[in-house]
Amino acid sequence: MISVIGYYTTKFGELWNKALFDLVDEALFGVLKETSIEKKQIDAVFFSNMMSGVLENNLHSPSKIAEILGGHIPVFRVEAACASGGTAFHMAVKYLEAHAGKTVIVIGAEKMTDFSPEEVISALTSASSGEEQEAGITFAGLYAMMAQIYFAKYHYTKKNLSYVSYKNHYHGSLNENAQFRRRITRKEAIASPLIAYPFGVLDCSPISDGASAIILTSDKNLLSKKNKAISVLASEIATDTISLKNRAYMDGIEASSIAAQKAFEGAACTRQDIQVAEVHDCFTIAELFAMEDLGFWKKGTAGKRITSLDTMLGNGGRLIVNTSGGLKAAGHPVGATGIKQIGEIFLQLTNQAGKRQVKGAEKGLTHNVGGSGGSAVVSIFSI
Amino acid sequence: MISVIGYYTTKFGELWNKALFDLVDEALFGVLKETSIEKKQIDAVFFSNMMSGVLENNLHSPSKIAEILGGHIPVFRVEAACASGGTAFHMAVKYLEAHAGKTVIVIGAEKMTDFSPEEVISALTSASSGEEQEAGITFAGLYAMMAQIYFAKYHYTKKNLSYVSYKNHYHGSLNENAQFRRRITRKEAIASPLIAYPFGVLDCSPISDGASAIILTSDKNLLSKKNKAISVLASEIATDTISLKNRAYMDGIEASSIAAQKAFEGAACTRQDIQVAEVHDCFTIAELFAMEDLGFWKKGTAGKRITSLDTMLGNGGRLIVNTSGGLKAAGHPVGATGIKQIGEIFLQLTNQAGKRQVKGAEKGLTHNVGGSGGSAVVSIFSI
Repeated sequence: MISVIGYYTTKFGELWNKALFDLVDEALFGVLKETSIEKKQIDAVFFSNMMSGVLENNLHSPSKIAEILGGHIPVFRVEAACASGGTAFHMAVKYLEAHAGKTVIVIGAEKMTDFSPEEVISALTSASSGEEQEAGITFAGLYAMMAQIYFAKYHYTKKNLSYVSYKNHYHGSLNENAQFRRRITRKEAIASPLIAYPFGVLDCSPISDGASAIILTSDKNLLSKKNKAISVLASEIATDTISLKNRAYMDGIEASSIAAQKAFEGAACTRQDIQVAEVHDCFTIAELFAMEDLGFWKKGTAGKRITSLDTMLGNGGRLIVNTSGGLKAAGHPVGATGIKQIGEIFLQLTNQAGKRQVKGAEKGLTHNVGGSGGSAVVSIFSI
Repeated sequence: MISVIGYYTTKFGELWNKALFDLVDEALFGVLKETSIEKKQIDAVFFSNMMSGVLENNLHSPSKIAEILGGHIPVFRVEAACASGGTAFHMAVKYLEAHAGKTVIVIGAEKMTDFSPEEVISALTSASSGEEQEAGITFAGLYAMMAQIYFAKYHYTKKNLSYVSYKNHYHGSLNENAQFRRRITRKEAIASPLIAYPFGVLDCSPISDGASAIILTSDKNLLSKKNKAISVLASEIATDTISLKNRAYMDGIEASSIAAQKAFEGAACTRQDIQVAEVHDCFTIAELFAMEDLGFWKKGTAGKRITSLDTMLGNGGRLIVNTSGGLKAAGHPVGATGIKQIGEIFLQLTNQAGKRQVKGAEKGLTHNVGGSGGSAVVSIFSI
């Protein structure tokens, strides 16, 4: 059995006084302190980061992390665009499945705000196809096209999207590490400055700095000493074509569906068993897709289902989504996002989520997507 | 048991008519054809690449490889500078240790010659520390400093290095996929234009394009159908500080020693059991370090031992080193190098190495280093 036994995250936001490896340093030693685990107890580190090569000519992070930690343990850098965190976690799970009695740190970090918006947006497009890059389309543009197809097919509008940002900003207001703590109205969301129709700025996740780390173990002795722990029931990855035009369909993300199907089979539980989920809402439409792709809501119904806001805290729903604030309000430091999602589920299932606690949550799910859906990771956890 | 059951490599060199993913395509379908394995039999792909993000704003390769292969299987991109290939292989081994009955492709690729030397050299420095980058020192400079320390301590000169390039260029002349097929004299090596003292250009591995792929399996049924297969006895990784100045010593690479020690323990064999090795000769001094760090030769003796040339084909030695031509003559398309090394050992141990065959080789070793030694991977194989 593989268990998450600790979590630490830096604040997410515009952290101009911290460089990438300052954030890494804070999260590495933060999670060790949080769990009272010594660094000599750590057998390997899995590091998720997308853009440090492109933005600051900064690669070979295994060695850079070895310098921070001291010693000579294996460190693995994993990159899968915005799904880097979930992918690093997945690889760490496989590593521990191959090794009983080992303990690893999975850490994700990204430094985005030291660069011009043009540089960051260009770096983000490295996760799309060459053709899409050459056409000059951004990720807001790609997801906007997908939203338009969804709207045309199922007769929804911008208004349906506004429930997602309204809800996630409310959740973010309860998360002291979130980039945005301000509650917004649906009206504000709908009227926000246009980015790529139908998205206003309040439909889009921000540019963020941050680092998040968890400790994962297959060591029964260590686990027996920890009263805050959750089990990994399943972690599955699926890929799809990088080019939107080559997908089987565009009103959803097939890689998410495939990964979710396998994860629920692996975890031997049903959608109804999940009380809390962190899904990949890089744009508001992406949360609607996620709810359908993960099998929580039927295809084509998410635009309507979201209007009841029963995935929002305090409304009595059976499944609460993105209590962290999601990518939208908590922020989206790309490499960190997939780890923060797992950390949030850890906090929820161990009853440490404070003002945003989902009472009695016993099973949780995380869903991390790369690019426009070229990769997706779904993991399921239980107390 | 994990086995390598096939290998394909593109030619290494200045392949101006092929883009990065053209090389990936050739190697993916090349290794499938070579082994008569269908793509539906592949459960995951591990992809090693260092610089596509920095050089061509090209990330999210898992999805790009999914587009080439079709389907939705997991694809993992691993980056550890020049040790990316060995690290991807190591992770694939762990993946298969966690999964009986699975088969994966491990592929490495790099595209370097479409860019100016300045761009490529700058991108390569992303594998050194920020301080070293700011000081403007290149990897030739870093290894040159290490060579000077070694020379001062053990009283060697440039002449001792020349045996490495002489030998490896001779081996390269026997490898039809090598970038350099021309045999050189020791005199030419010593007189070659200075890069960073004591290195002339013939002490340095070149800038190269190329892709190499192997198929690795834990599937006993599949293995039983293949008469060309070798077993993975051990694969170990160690890291060290990114900054040379923080190392315990500089006249060798401690990460290599640590990884080798663990690998020989894991493989339960001795240095004398190895008949063929591919070691990381990014600069000539690096092969001398490797021979000592891996425990083949005693500390401080490599400068003398190499002069007997008994690690060269045809001289009756018990251990032949870098039959592929090494990084020096076969070329060094960074992400591909660690995979090519394993492929060369596969060819040797399965008696498919043609003109450069080491007769009766039963056990082989690969050694892949990142940067100036901030990471190292050592793997041991057996027929």
